[in-house]
Amino acid sequence: MAKYAIGVDFGTLAVRALIVEVSNGGELACASFDYPHGVMSESLPDGTPLKPDWALQHPLDYWDGIRYVVRRAVEQAGIPADDIIGLGIDFTSSTSLPVDESGIPLCLKRDFSSNPWAWPMLWKHHAAQVYANRMTEAAQVRQMRFLGQCGGRISSEMMFPRLWQIRVEAPNVYQAADCFMEAGDWITRQLTGSRVCSANPAMYKLFWAEDTGYPPRDFFEALDPGFSDVLSKVSHTFLPLGSRAGILNQAGAEATGLIPGTPVSVTCIDAHTAIPAAGVAEGRKLVLTLGTSAAHVVLDQDEHRVKGLLCMARDGIIPGWYAYEAGQSCCGDHFRWFVDQFARSDAAEALPGLRTDLHALFSQKAARLQPGESGLLALDWWNGNRSVLMNANLSGLILGLSLQTRPEEIYRALIEATAYGSRVILENFESSGIPVNEVYVCGGIAKKNPLLMQIYADVLKRKLHMVRSEQANALGAAIFAAVAAGKARGGYDSIRKAARAMGGTGDLVYEPCSESSRIYDELYAEYRKLHDYLGAENPVMRHLKEISLRSKSAHG
Amino acid sequence: MAKYAIGVDFGTLAVRALIVEVSNGGELACASFDYPHGVMSESLPDGTPLKPDWALQHPLDYWDGIRYVVRRAVEQAGIPADDIIGLGIDFTSSTSLPVDESGIPLCLKRDFSSNPWAWPMLWKHHAAQVYANRMTEAAQVRQMRFLGQCGGRISSEMMFPRLWQIRVEAPNVYQAADCFMEAGDWITRQLTGSRVCSANPAMYKLFWAEDTGYPPRDFFEALDPGFSDVLSKVSHTFLPLGSRAGILNQAGAEATGLIPGTPVSVTCIDAHTAIPAAGVAEGRKLVLTLGTSAAHVVLDQDEHRVKGLLCMARDGIIPGWYAYEAGQSCCGDHFRWFVDQFARSDAAEALPGLRTDLHALFSQKAARLQPGESGLLALDWWNGNRSVLMNANLSGLILGLSLQTRPEEIYRALIEATAYGSRVILENFESSGIPVNEVYVCGGIAKKNPLLMQIYADVLKRKLHMVRSEQANALGAAIFAAVAAGKARGGYDSIRKAARAMGGTGDLVYEPCSESSRIYDELYAEYRKLHDYLGAENPVMRHLKEISLRSKSAHG
Repeated sequence: MAKYAIGVDFGTLAVRALIVEVSNGGELACASFDYPHGVMSESLPDGTPLKPDWALQHPLDYWDGIRYVVRRAVEQAGIPADDIIGLGIDFTSSTSLPVDESGIPLCLKRDFSSNPWAWPMLWKHHAAQVYANRMTEAAQVRQMRFLGQCGGRISSEMMFPRLWQIRVEAPNVYQAADCFMEAGDWITRQLTGSRVCSANPAMYKLFWAEDTGYPPRDFFEALDPGFSDVLSKVSHTFLPLGSRAGILNQAGAEATGLIPGTPVSVTCIDAHTAIPAAGVAEGRKLVLTLGTSAAHVVLDQDEHRVKGLLCMARDGIIPGWYAYEAGQSCCGDHFRWFVDQFARSDAAEALPGLRTDLHALFSQKAARLQPGESGLLALDWWNGNRSVLMNANLSGLILGLSLQTRPEEIYRALIEATAYGSRVILENFESSGIPVNEVYVCGGIAKKNPLLMQIYADVLKRKLHMVRSEQANALGAAIFAAVAAGKARGGYDSIRKAARAMGGTGDLVYEPCSESSRIYDELYAEYRKLHDYLGAENPVMRHLKEISLRSKSAHG
Repeated sequence: MAKYAIGVDFGTLAVRALIVEVSNGGELACASFDYPHGVMSESLPDGTPLKPDWALQHPLDYWDGIRYVVRRAVEQAGIPADDIIGLGIDFTSSTSLPVDESGIPLCLKRDFSSNPWAWPMLWKHHAAQVYANRMTEAAQVRQMRFLGQCGGRISSEMMFPRLWQIRVEAPNVYQAADCFMEAGDWITRQLTGSRVCSANPAMYKLFWAEDTGYPPRDFFEALDPGFSDVLSKVSHTFLPLGSRAGILNQAGAEATGLIPGTPVSVTCIDAHTAIPAAGVAEGRKLVLTLGTSAAHVVLDQDEHRVKGLLCMARDGIIPGWYAYEAGQSCCGDHFRWFVDQFARSDAAEALPGLRTDLHALFSQKAARLQPGESGLLALDWWNGNRSVLMNANLSGLILGLSLQTRPEEIYRALIEATAYGSRVILENFESSGIPVNEVYVCGGIAKKNPLLMQIYADVLKRKLHMVRSEQANALGAAIFAAVAAGKARGGYDSIRKAARAMGGTGDLVYEPCSESSRIYDELYAEYRKLHDYLGAENPVMRHLKEISLRSKSAHG
């Protein structure tokens, strides 16, 4: 009798559930649910306005979402709930929220529903940048060891700078919170009643380590005496990926339609699920997830100092391996920006049937161009840079424009720019001592856009293996569920075995073309020169942002 | 009884005739004619293909055009031909053609009709760039005095490099030509039968001077012994602006419908007509013509060395004054490129009635932005740079792009970039010893776009006076016609008097706003830094062009 696992993937705008056959990774059904409140960046549901750089979410969107998608996927698959041996989740991170002693989000309580500080802060909430900067400086002065885990710089996408800001700017929320939780941990708590949390986001976003725990209390005390109690707000039992957070309790079973007692694995950061989904459990293989942004994850047996790293942890994903993550803050977002703002509908009408997919139209036109033909070069910083330069004040650039420049040439230049950005990350890994022989790619863009894949292969000068699943995140979550279920229930006793059986690549491989790679080597040298000049020598991009902010505030 | 003059303005795509009252510059009628063959950049009329950088025209378009527009304008004005005291023309320059002894263009003769070298080369024909570069080097080595007349660099838009190329690459055309003429001189020859030519283009485009004539024969001989006879191909009688080329002969009178004997003035370079049209006959007043490209002309009593000058000549426009011309190779072309390639028709539909004028739509939206608000900065080099950097290999740049960047922000950034480019020229004049207190503006864009005018005033930090006429070129040509007619016939005995009476500005003045100017000072400092870096330090733009050419030819 076949056994199944469910992976539930909480993304930025939607949640998806995938039913996977445990023996071979076969996918039976997938259901998704768009968050009704999406990303709240302008106001709360009651109209309370939000400042720039804020990005909140609604916890009921998560809960309503998982209830819908699990039921719907099981129904579609047409399998009995008895055969589902485990449920796993992955979540964007750090997406976190304050809860009371019962685990109820403060924002759902009458006293706090109009208070923005009480709501879940999405990973791309950047309001705590000043606190992140001050915390980085303090950590550098004290040469804190954890800086090695985050490329030497604490990001405003991490939990501590946000908690510090809340402590200072919204002390009532800080005091009222029993604790602050990753949203993924909050979901497993809702499903199981268990307070066990995942070590994965704790290691990557909270500098927790299995052997030494959190950074010492005196670091926080030195920052701000009022912040010295912060560890009491984030103290949980942390278990590694593949562990059980608990088993479905009555409420969790009723919500999902699954059997009480079904094991639920601890949550995983969404980008990290790509490793088991790709079937990767060893080094030299870079796993690249191409979505609105891009994540680059690679395993290595040793600890290395890597500049511009997003985060790194020992045993972070696969036991026995250091897992390194770097990323680009903009990938598919570039292409969408261009199509949304500059695509002429008459261009689409010229090719009937493509009207609804302007990306396909532009890709088709761009594919007719040779590397270098357009004379264009772009810097992929429309949303800042979060790899080696780690600077949110950087912005996008297009150079080489002429009166003959056509839209599809710009579209291709944007693709090439994101490929160059990935090459910077790859070369940075290698020069830090982490070799990369092959690249494994997942994400919707990769599936849909063969031109992009070929450009990446040519620019990165590596074979590109396409991850088989089109739902790599949810598949990775299901793999962890199969491990949490354990061999006795029909699952696996190690992530490595589960990943090998359930994850992996298909037959599709993109080989670099040496002629194109030679041209891209030349273009990349120019990219790198501008990258270094505008990233380090000429602060024009920061100045323009400052002038823009002044101009906006002067005219309200 | 009122007297009238006709100005006929030969532009890049069309010819216009304007009937002007001699006493006060009042405009009675205007007629225009689009050249049926436009700019031939891909093939000759018989299909013979042209190489990149070629730009030819058809001489019959000129002749058919002047026949049509003069008759039509006189008809519209409803005045008797007897009251027309003179006809003047201006022409793009250097636009030149080879003719036989009778003045018949070689391209109209059977033996040469399929030979591209025999056709009129438009000012923007750039095929002789290599010859221009070699000629510049030779002139620099020999420290030729005429380099001071052209900013130290011979342009491929001038006649000598083209003639050298024809001598080398099409010796049969070179030999068959009785002479090579500016197209403007060819028109006056057709109208009058006279071989008198204009000193104005000769001084600016052929380094001719009234006192010393052409550069010496040994300069050309040293370049290439086969080219030593070039002066015999361009030897004419040259007379200054305001002189008569001749009087209408029978053929000219029949063609135009005017009276035989009507005086015809010598041709003027189109950009230079803006000086009398603006009523300017003295220094400290920069006359700016904003069209597809932009021309900057200013008078000064002394001779100065000016870097990146297009050209300079003593008595070049107004007797007793040195007239300096600089320019931008792209102005309105930027905006048109953007609207043609990137304007979404749905954006236009949002504002009914504006559908046919997307420029108005974008300007309206861009006018709501504050200076600096968009965070964008552009370099206005879509068509290279022909001011202080004088480099056709430069290309356009947009910097500061984000996922929030909207089309109207880019549109405004393009306007601002052309204003910064004008400021570089203005500051360059001033630092070379030529003061500029006020700016006079003409050209269709200036009339249509108040936002652009205000941005220019704020960036240049000068009062901007709008030239009254909407047909400044044709008005300038009519002013020269009134001088060629002379006082006895009801005209004038000096350009200065004619310009004061017939040219001038209206009431519309744009004053710089000091608050905006402060922000633009900051942005201009950033522009200037990138201008110098990409213009001199980092040859990335040239490299991209080289890579593009290689890529195209490899897959040609």
